Amino acid sequence: MISETNIIHNYLKNLTFNNKSSLKLNDDVYYDVNKKIIFSTDTFEEGTHFVKSSNPNKFVKKIFRSAVSDILCKGSRPMVYFLSLSAPKITHKWLNSFCNELKKESKKYGLFLGGGDTVKSKKLSISISVIGETKTKPILRSTARKNDDIYVTGNLGDSFLGLVALKNKTFSIKFKKFFINLYEAPNLPLKFSKHIYKFATSSTDVSDGVIRDLENICSASKCGAKLFFSKIPFSKQALELSRTKKINLYKIFSKGDDYQILFTSNSKNRKLIKFISKKNNTKVSRIGVITSKNGVQMKNGDKIDNLSSIKSGYIHTF
Amino acid sequence: MISETNIIHNYLKNLTFNNKSSLKLNDDVYYDVNKKIIFSTDTFEEGTHFVKSSNPNKFVKKIFRSAVSDILCKGSRPMVYFLSLSAPKITHKWLNSFCNELKKESKKYGLFLGGGDTVKSKKLSISISVIGETKTKPILRSTARKNDDIYVTGNLGDSFLGLVALKNKTFSIKFKKFFINLYEAPNLPLKFSKHIYKFATSSTDVSDGVIRDLENICSASKCGAKLFFSKIPFSKQALELSRTKKINLYKIFSKGDDYQILFTSNSKNRKLIKFISKKNNTKVSRIGVITSKNGVQMKNGDKIDNLSSIKSGYIHTF
Repeated sequence: MISETNIIHNYLKNLTFNNKSSLKLNDDVYYDVNKKIIFSTDTFEEGTHFVKSSNPNKFVKKIFRSAVSDILCKGSRPMVYFLSLSAPKITHKWLNSFCNELKKESKKYGLFLGGGDTVKSKKLSISISVIGETKTKPILRSTARKNDDIYVTGNLGDSFLGLVALKNKTFSIKFKKFFINLYEAPNLPLKFSKHIYKFATSSTDVSDGVIRDLENICSASKCGAKLFFSKIPFSKQALELSRTKKINLYKIFSKGDDYQILFTSNSKNRKLIKFISKKNNTKVSRIGVITSKNGVQMKNGDKIDNLSSIKSGYIHTF
Repeated sequence: MISETNIIHNYLKNLTFNNKSSLKLNDDVYYDVNKKIIFSTDTFEEGTHFVKSSNPNKFVKKIFRSAVSDILCKGSRPMVYFLSLSAPKITHKWLNSFCNELKKESKKYGLFLGGGDTVKSKKLSISISVIGETKTKPILRSTARKNDDIYVTGNLGDSFLGLVALKNKTFSIKFKKFFINLYEAPNLPLKFSKHIYKFATSSTDVSDGVIRDLENICSASKCGAKLFFSKIPFSKQALELSRTKKINLYKIFSKGDDYQILFTSNSKNRKLIKFISKKNNTKVSRIGVITSKNGVQMKNGDKIDNLSSIKSGYIHTF
């Protein structure tokens, strides 16, 4: 078994020829300082990244926002996207619905379609690449500093509960629609993202789960992190399910697909962040602190756990 | 059945919001005049774009050159590439060989890896996106003019014969290795491509077959074309097979995968093109002329045939 991380660091990094714009493949983006662009590409497959392809209403928002999220979380402006569509037999009805969804999404986030490729395939697979414009230097993963505060926007875990509800038809919980909607159409912190260049020292989006994504920051920035479980943000709905013992919050907070922004900032910015959070009507929670130790720790009551994304997040293995 | 062309023109074009950089999806590239970049993306699947994935030596050159070719044929410089790797279980041996091939290819064509994505999948599928730098305006498909000469570099049909030889183990022909090699490692006209901005009015690469690719120029430029079969360039090897009646050249010249450059130019540039062709040791053949009629015609001896890519080239249908 070979992990994604192993492939990137032991094989692919070597192919960058140490060009600075590749950011040592430590980030989710490519950054060309001369052209003032950043670039990100994501591939989405039926069964892995979304449940079913039959109804575009149910997956286009998710994959489009996931692609745009990589640019937004860097404090950059998504400019243009490219679509590679590998598809089996499709109908005009499906195409109509697929394109209508894309149209609405791209209008919402201010992008246009720049080009792409269409290929006949046995299974639906879609790659979305996005070029973003950077007025200021994008916020990278590699620039967190010791004692920085760690923040996350929105709530964690709702999207995962949506996925569970979708996959297990017998899993009947209250607020089922609420969770499924957040899985199929994650709420990106668009307005707030436009301000993060003012205070964030490092950032990423929460796609593979907050532990895994925080590990990415720590490994790129050569630092560790300590989280406080009491500060992890959950929705009212998730909290209510937890109170009635339907779910264990400690088991779901780092399952991924939240597409919120995880960032670090110097403690002197606390007031500013509160102010901007309020002004943009965006929930922002201070959940931990950057340390000089390796790895991610979690303070949960009196206990301190060493966390590992291998158990709690999503990593592709081959 | 829905064709690729139908999908592009009736569905996807609508998503460009008429942004000029999208070039109405009439070209294989996106062109941002302010950033001075062009961008192209291609997806390659086992069984469709290459025969087998088990040995990277046998397919990496082909797909890499196919991706780079889109930029070269525009007279632009390929700068950086991005790799989306959807793969089933892979071994360290395979990864080593895959990355070694990529390293050699990217050195040869002057690119570096900028980033990408890795996804676990049931079948190998690889997307390669390339950003190219444009010092001068890239040569588009939409700018051919009536009475322009039509040119193509290299030879046509060899790559197709290689594919036939690979697929039919019983198909025993002389020069089998020669043809297979051109299928697996097409010879891009790299040196010559650096000069085409000096004389080409329009251009494309020959990927889907010369008729289909010429139709793309004609439809984008709102013109027609007349080809002369006697001028179509073939290798010595293909000509010898044809003399011994093993193959019919008229049936193979437009089967695609040649990755040569097809371009148009004003007749006043004939001497210049001959000179640059000689200086760069690149075979360049004048094969026809742009007309005001619709469609592509072929003069074959005394006969004039109306050609259609539906029979002779490669079009994805869904």
